[in-house]
Amino acid sequence: MADRINYSRIIQVATLLAFGLGCGARYTADWESLDARPLPNWFDDVKFGVFIHWGVFSVPGFGKFSEWFWYWWKGLKYQEEIAFMRKNYPPNFQYADFANEFHAEFFDANSWAEILEASGAKYVVFTSKHHDGFTNWPSPTSWNWNSMDVGPHRDLVGELAVAVRKRNLHFGLYHSMFEWFNPLYLSDEASGFKNQDFVFGKALPELVQLVKTYKPDLIWSDGDWNAPDTYWNSTEFLAWLYNDSPVKDVVVTNDRWGKGCYCKHGGYYNCADRYTPTEVPTHKWEKCQTIDTLSWGYRRYMKATELLTLPNILKDMMYVVAFGGNYLLNIGPMSDGMIPPVFEERLRDIGSWLKINGEAVYGSKAWRAQTEQAVVPLYYTAKNNSVYAVIFGWPPNQRLQLSLPKTSEATNVTLLDYPNMPLTWKPVKGAGLVIAMPPMAASAGNTWTLKLEGVA
Amino acid sequence: MADRINYSRIIQVATLLAFGLGCGARYTADWESLDARPLPNWFDDVKFGVFIHWGVFSVPGFGKFSEWFWYWWKGLKYQEEIAFMRKNYPPNFQYADFANEFHAEFFDANSWAEILEASGAKYVVFTSKHHDGFTNWPSPTSWNWNSMDVGPHRDLVGELAVAVRKRNLHFGLYHSMFEWFNPLYLSDEASGFKNQDFVFGKALPELVQLVKTYKPDLIWSDGDWNAPDTYWNSTEFLAWLYNDSPVKDVVVTNDRWGKGCYCKHGGYYNCADRYTPTEVPTHKWEKCQTIDTLSWGYRRYMKATELLTLPNILKDMMYVVAFGGNYLLNIGPMSDGMIPPVFEERLRDIGSWLKINGEAVYGSKAWRAQTEQAVVPLYYTAKNNSVYAVIFGWPPNQRLQLSLPKTSEATNVTLLDYPNMPLTWKPVKGAGLVIAMPPMAASAGNTWTLKLEGVA
Amino acid sequence: MADRINYSRIIQVATLLAFGLGCGARYTADWESLDARPLPNWFDDVKFGVFIHWGVFSVPGFGKFSEWFWYWWKGLKYQEEIAFMRKNYPPNFQYADFANEFHAEFFDANSWAEILEASGAKYVVFTSKHHDGFTNWPSPTSWNWNSMDVGPHRDLVGELAVAVRKRNLHFGLYHSMFEWFNPLYLSDEASGFKNQDFVFGKALPELVQLVKTYKPDLIWSDGDWNAPDTYWNSTEFLAWLYNDSPVKDVVVTNDRWGKGCYCKHGGYYNCADRYTPTEVPTHKWEKCQTIDTLSWGYRRYMKATELLTLPNILKDMMYVVAFGGNYLLNIGPMSDGMIPPVFEERLRDIGSWLKINGEAVYGSKAWRAQTEQAVVPLYYTAKNNSVYAVIFGWPPNQRLQLSLPKTSEATNVTLLDYPNMPLTWKPVKGAGLVIAMPPMAASAGNTWTLKLEGVA
Amino acid sequence: MADRINYSRIIQVATLLAFGLGCGARYTADWESLDARPLPNWFDDVKFGVFIHWGVFSVPGFGKFSEWFWYWWKGLKYQEEIAFMRKNYPPNFQYADFANEFHAEFFDANSWAEILEASGAKYVVFTSKHHDGFTNWPSPTSWNWNSMDVGPHRDLVGELAVAVRKRNLHFGLYHSMFEWFNPLYLSDEASGFKNQDFVFGKALPELVQLVKTYKPDLIWSDGDWNAPDTYWNSTEFLAWLYNDSPVKDVVVTNDRWGKGCYCKHGGYYNCADRYTPTEVPTHKWEKCQTIDTLSWGYRRYMKATELLTLPNILKDMMYVVAFGGNYLLNIGPMSDGMIPPVFEERLRDIGSWLKINGEAVYGSKAWRAQTEQAVVPLYYTAKNNSVYAVIFGWPPNQRLQLSLPKTSEATNVTLLDYPNMPLTWKPVKGAGLVIAMPPMAASAGNTWTLKLEGVA
Repeated sequence: MADRINYSRIIQVATLLAFGLGCGARYTADWESLDARPLPNWFDDVKFGVFIHWGVFSVPGFGKFSEWFWYWWKGLKYQEEIAFMRKNYPPNFQYADFANEFHAEFFDANSWAEILEASGAKYVVFTSKHHDGFTNWPSPTSWNWNSMDVGPHRDLVGELAVAVRKRNLHFGLYHSMFEWFNPLYLSDEASGFKNQDFVFGKALPELVQLVKTYKPDLIWSDGDWNAPDTYWNSTEFLAWLYNDSPVKDVVVTNDRWGKGCYCKHGGYYNCADRYTPTEVPTHKWEKCQTIDTLSWGYRRYMKATELLTLPNILKDMMYVVAFGGNYLLNIGPMSDGMIPPVFEERLRDIGSWLKINGEAVYGSKAWRAQTEQAVVPLYYTAKNNSVYAVIFGWPPNQRLQLSLPKTSEATNVTLLDYPNMPLTWKPVKGAGLVIAMPPMAASAGNTWTLKLEGVA
Repeated sequence: MADRINYSRIIQVATLLAFGLGCGARYTADWESLDARPLPNWFDDVKFGVFIHWGVFSVPGFGKFSEWFWYWWKGLKYQEEIAFMRKNYPPNFQYADFANEFHAEFFDANSWAEILEASGAKYVVFTSKHHDGFTNWPSPTSWNWNSMDVGPHRDLVGELAVAVRKRNLHFGLYHSMFEWFNPLYLSDEASGFKNQDFVFGKALPELVQLVKTYKPDLIWSDGDWNAPDTYWNSTEFLAWLYNDSPVKDVVVTNDRWGKGCYCKHGGYYNCADRYTPTEVPTHKWEKCQTIDTLSWGYRRYMKATELLTLPNILKDMMYVVAFGGNYLLNIGPMSDGMIPPVFEERLRDIGSWLKINGEAVYGSKAWRAQTEQAVVPLYYTAKNNSVYAVIFGWPPNQRLQLSLPKTSEATNVTLLDYPNMPLTWKPVKGAGLVIAMPPMAASAGNTWTLKLEGVA
Repeated sequence: MADRINYSRIIQVATLLAFGLGCGARYTADWESLDARPLPNWFDDVKFGVFIHWGVFSVPGFGKFSEWFWYWWKGLKYQEEIAFMRKNYPPNFQYADFANEFHAEFFDANSWAEILEASGAKYVVFTSKHHDGFTNWPSPTSWNWNSMDVGPHRDLVGELAVAVRKRNLHFGLYHSMFEWFNPLYLSDEASGFKNQDFVFGKALPELVQLVKTYKPDLIWSDGDWNAPDTYWNSTEFLAWLYNDSPVKDVVVTNDRWGKGCYCKHGGYYNCADRYTPTEVPTHKWEKCQTIDTLSWGYRRYMKATELLTLPNILKDMMYVVAFGGNYLLNIGPMSDGMIPPVFEERLRDIGSWLKINGEAVYGSKAWRAQTEQAVVPLYYTAKNNSVYAVIFGWPPNQRLQLSLPKTSEATNVTLLDYPNMPLTWKPVKGAGLVIAMPPMAASAGNTWTLKLEGVA
Repeated sequence: MADRINYSRIIQVATLLAFGLGCGARYTADWESLDARPLPNWFDDVKFGVFIHWGVFSVPGFGKFSEWFWYWWKGLKYQEEIAFMRKNYPPNFQYADFANEFHAEFFDANSWAEILEASGAKYVVFTSKHHDGFTNWPSPTSWNWNSMDVGPHRDLVGELAVAVRKRNLHFGLYHSMFEWFNPLYLSDEASGFKNQDFVFGKALPELVQLVKTYKPDLIWSDGDWNAPDTYWNSTEFLAWLYNDSPVKDVVVTNDRWGKGCYCKHGGYYNCADRYTPTEVPTHKWEKCQTIDTLSWGYRRYMKATELLTLPNILKDMMYVVAFGGNYLLNIGPMSDGMIPPVFEERLRDIGSWLKINGEAVYGSKAWRAQTEQAVVPLYYTAKNNSVYAVIFGWPPNQRLQLSLPKTSEATNVTLLDYPNMPLTWKPVKGAGLVIAMPPMAASAGNTWTLKLEGVA
């Protein structure tokens, strides 16, 4: 009977297996080949993206790292989550019962996209499916556990994809490999990951469908860490993605493709969450960060004091950019489809800042130095022939001494706020220069950029 | 890659395919072999069973044949169902949203079993899964669309199986092959049933799991009619069921295993719903009937006048028994787990009647005649050396002439109500006999009024 | 300031106080005058009515005497009700939260009225307001705690009044004086019922509004027992009702108008619930009885075995009629507006019986004897020149001897089933007569089995 | 019967009527007497308060001025509200049905109070009851339409009162006189406000209970405008409040006590909403303003761009303070009890600014001039012997000329940020002075205060 099973149709990964014959430049399903693929250019240029965690977990919206609510509650049996449920729900209420309170009645993808564009971000990464397995698009292998069948009754991924692209932002999809409580996954796990029923029955078909349907520019893989990449069939998937998928030329991926992969294989490196290198890595990397310091998913109990302030964010972002990384800043929308106004305001404020200072960010490269000890904290970036020093705070006495830039006759210093007003500066004996800052007025972010031309 | 897929583990039908070598008496996966299997004895003896339709459809509990609610509403777009939804629910409400109102808070399997036993039924057939695909047990291939993950959060099949067996009733499971709106099924259908993704990904794994877990004495297959048995892989399944399953010796099946199968292949015959032959079929058969004449699932708007009365049911049942069939009488419990009291009362009334008259039913055979023209309607059954005439109505003048039984000196006539009081009878010239009936019989109301005029 | 308060407008009982001057035939607000009012004729004639308990309590529909749910739960803190709530609702859920689950979506007053008429009942008593204070009509003094503002969003009293009258049944209203948890009532109670804020702010305005708006033929007062009639202002209300209200000529009331009133003052007597005198009372009385022996309000957990059977009801009813009472039989509709089919069936079966036997009921009077010792239980009624013996069970040997009726030459005996077939009877020496009963009578199942042994 | 009604108990305003005899210094129930009462000192000193609109309207949280949702929807039948309901709720859903979704599960009065204190506000005004009539405390005359009986099942007023006082803020209560849809009110209105059933049955008893129970420092009356003060019985209430209530010495009231009253009678003046005088009024006044420019109640669809920014607020507040007013800034909490973080952040930012600049605000008086034309906008306040110029934006070239202050030898100018660093200034010929500003660094609010001592 086995020969009658057209397996590939079941899981829709037929093309995954199609192997190119006779066309020399194809990737093979092994890390050596895949890792050699050059990262599509756009990714390094954009620098700043917005991460969005939205799903059934946004309904309870409770506790630290609310997107893990189900696991804290039923997996680890944390007292805080248990007490919350006991207080607010009937005893028999389970996680799946939250799904039809996920109404998304105010979700307006164009309104989201307007905010995202206003933030100055150039790419967006949206949770197509988190560890709870609920798909934010109508997945045929997740029947009645997706946003079309229950709750919103809408294709959230699809609506956002269209709106985001209208604004010329790159559209990326977060995808969790594992699903904590999926019986197929649990049974594979019990086999020591020898069985791959879950991979071929759910994970891969959905990944392939996502790629074919929504043509994402980026796949942000996650939830891979319990099992080896051979279980996930990651190299086969990536070979298909790079060779034959509709996004083969533009797609960017990260490095979470199986136990031991991160910081080692795949596209750019995320390494651990909030990875913060102290030297410029040799491989393109990205740091994801979340405005609500306690969660990626929305927390209904979130307080303003628990959020990153605008100066915090700008400093964090510039650290990342200075070290050659991309900065992916997270927001957690509410279950009714609104981006909490405090997140919206942060994003708009970043956008206002980038409107002036974006020259030091977009398309920049790490300079030979990333920072130095000065009267105010600062980070360096470089682009074309300019060096940018982004400063956090205004120098007392309006005097800023930088020791690392080597001045020349061609040296010209401006503040990006006043591009046409060169600042007075003097070389410093030994090294560097002293800049006479203007009598400066307010800036919300407390952050400004000096542009140094003609320095080395 | 294909060789690495241990597909059989995915769908748990490995054993289904295991073919016995060297043991002569096994069934092969073809109708000739399978149809030759003798029907296990118990089934013909029991005569009377109760059918139970319960599921998510019990929540709206609306419209004719409420168990088809989803299909009327979204498939055929019937005005009645559309109007009901428009009047009572928000516009965005979908069928899957009903699931977490399926509370089953009063469901007590022992209480059901007590009623079932009291009805005189000897077997029970319970909807493990209807055409909406919602499984009343925790199926791993129906994650978050089953009674453990949403709604009741209980294993309804399991609880009922235990309770029913405690009362020594046979436990059977209804199982729908197709699922109207399952994307896997729809995609197979779109392929002209060349693909079998749904069969191997959902239908068969669930059937096999049901058999292994709950060890049903009977499988009441349904929802097969759109596709050939080769699509459903029915013969392979049955060969496994008869050869290697844990219920191989006792299990009974019906005849709904693919387009064209019914009344032709399988175990006993159901043929069409409410099949009513006019001659004794040569093959064991069963008629299913429903107390609520308009629905198998619960209808919240059901009125007493739409139900079969006790006399209706008894006459219908005896017709079936006289013609050698089994009678499977349906009830639709409420979404809170209660059997509507009016159904409970019917079942208990049938049981009261069977307590007296069951001798003519259980273990009986079709006699050489099934009925004849007499002053009251009647049906014949036979057992051991007795012939039973079940009469519907009391003969006027207490005189009942039967023309078909041939009397002898040994002839003895009794009423089962009064087993020790032989009735007077006389042979009739030509054929048959005349029986002198006693002057009395029971009455439900048991109350009459005498009018006395001219008394003081 | 007091003189500026036009108090009467507030509570709409101005006319209550209006005292007739110069018209001799008015009732005064004292029991001597009020008790002397003759009972309107219709009431004694009708004999049989249906009582309906419906309200917010029908939503939980739980526990013995479910209409008292709130009190069992929060007043007496019964474990059964506490456990039910704990199991099925969030901890913070309160009784008032049930109100918007009281949907009444299937409530069709004409459908109810059809059933009520079919039952043979001639009057209906409907809970306008029970002890929870929720009014089933839009009471201005019960804002947002009535069936128009929350839940059904309909005037239940009004809809039923119209439908019931279309069928020529008398329409009565149950009204609870006290409200367990109304803060105004509780504060009056705390004053030892010296304050009457609740009476003038809620109870009386509502009673008056009910009378003016719905013109009930009967007021079934209840919930009076904790406080004296002087607290309730009962005599003033009744004086207004009898003198000046729009129903002054036809309205009938009962006897629950304050502590110590029942069985003593008012219209007809209910005395205690299910009052069952053993001699014919000198004052018109009524027995209320409930089909669900455990509750007046709907119990979702009700089982068929807990209900009065048809024979029980007929016997109970005829006892009451024989002793000169009226019989008010209760049903508890479901919160969705359906009369449970098992109740509907009882009512229709009673109606079928009354269609034949109603002659012995409607318009009858108590005879000089109510019952006697015979081979079957029986009750006597009388009308015009006839005496009726209602028998419960069929006399063995078709022979019924009655010792109390005194026969004459004019004596004629018939069975109401066969009005044109006089039965043979013989006087009995000493007293009474012996009746030869016919050989036949109805049977619900209408089905018997003859066993023929030794036939071929 | 009238003499038997102890009306005062019903409405609990007995003491309201108590008229002082023989004690000279009591207020009489007329405006002349009441208007002569001096405003308690604390109110003019505090300058800044926070207004909180919370109630059942926070559940739909929809549309402009969401606290009026019910009226827009059912009173004026606005299309926007109708469409919202049609899209998201069953057709039969009514406003009262929202009440039990008002869960307030995260409401923590201490957490609110912490934020309120951090804002620098010195008083809080909380909606005890808005025009929908829902009371945020357990009012006995609003049974089952208050926060204890339905929804939160908590005494919101009581919890907040305790928490706010712990932080030494003054606690005030907003109270709406009229209730759009209260049948008692509507019937009074229909009488041309000749009847006062609503006033004596609901409005006054509740006001009196609020005062006695929660002892508010301020009563912010509203909803008075359709009817004259004689209908509301306002002067009697105020006489009681000022003479005999537990808060008689400290309580402050506003001017909304009946048609034609505002800006004319009562305590301080609110006049119309967002009253903004252009000369210093002779009577103490208050401007209320709302952070969400489109609503006082929470709007779930609120966007960051629709909110007042911090600079907007500071400028608006200082305008009010400069003109001798108090500034009452509104926030609308969510139905789950959270203050939206964007409001929390605004409040904390105001508090940060006031920590430095509060000296120019708290206890200040209007100076002889309120503003003048300078290089940046500014407002003057005065306290003790100092004049404060609050500037909005940093003077270009760090040079600020003020023409109104008259300098002397004692003149000393500082910036409140650097209290110990006198600024260099020079008198200007003709009038005023020029101040040399320091090279200034960032300030979120873009607002600073110059303190001018020794000027006239």
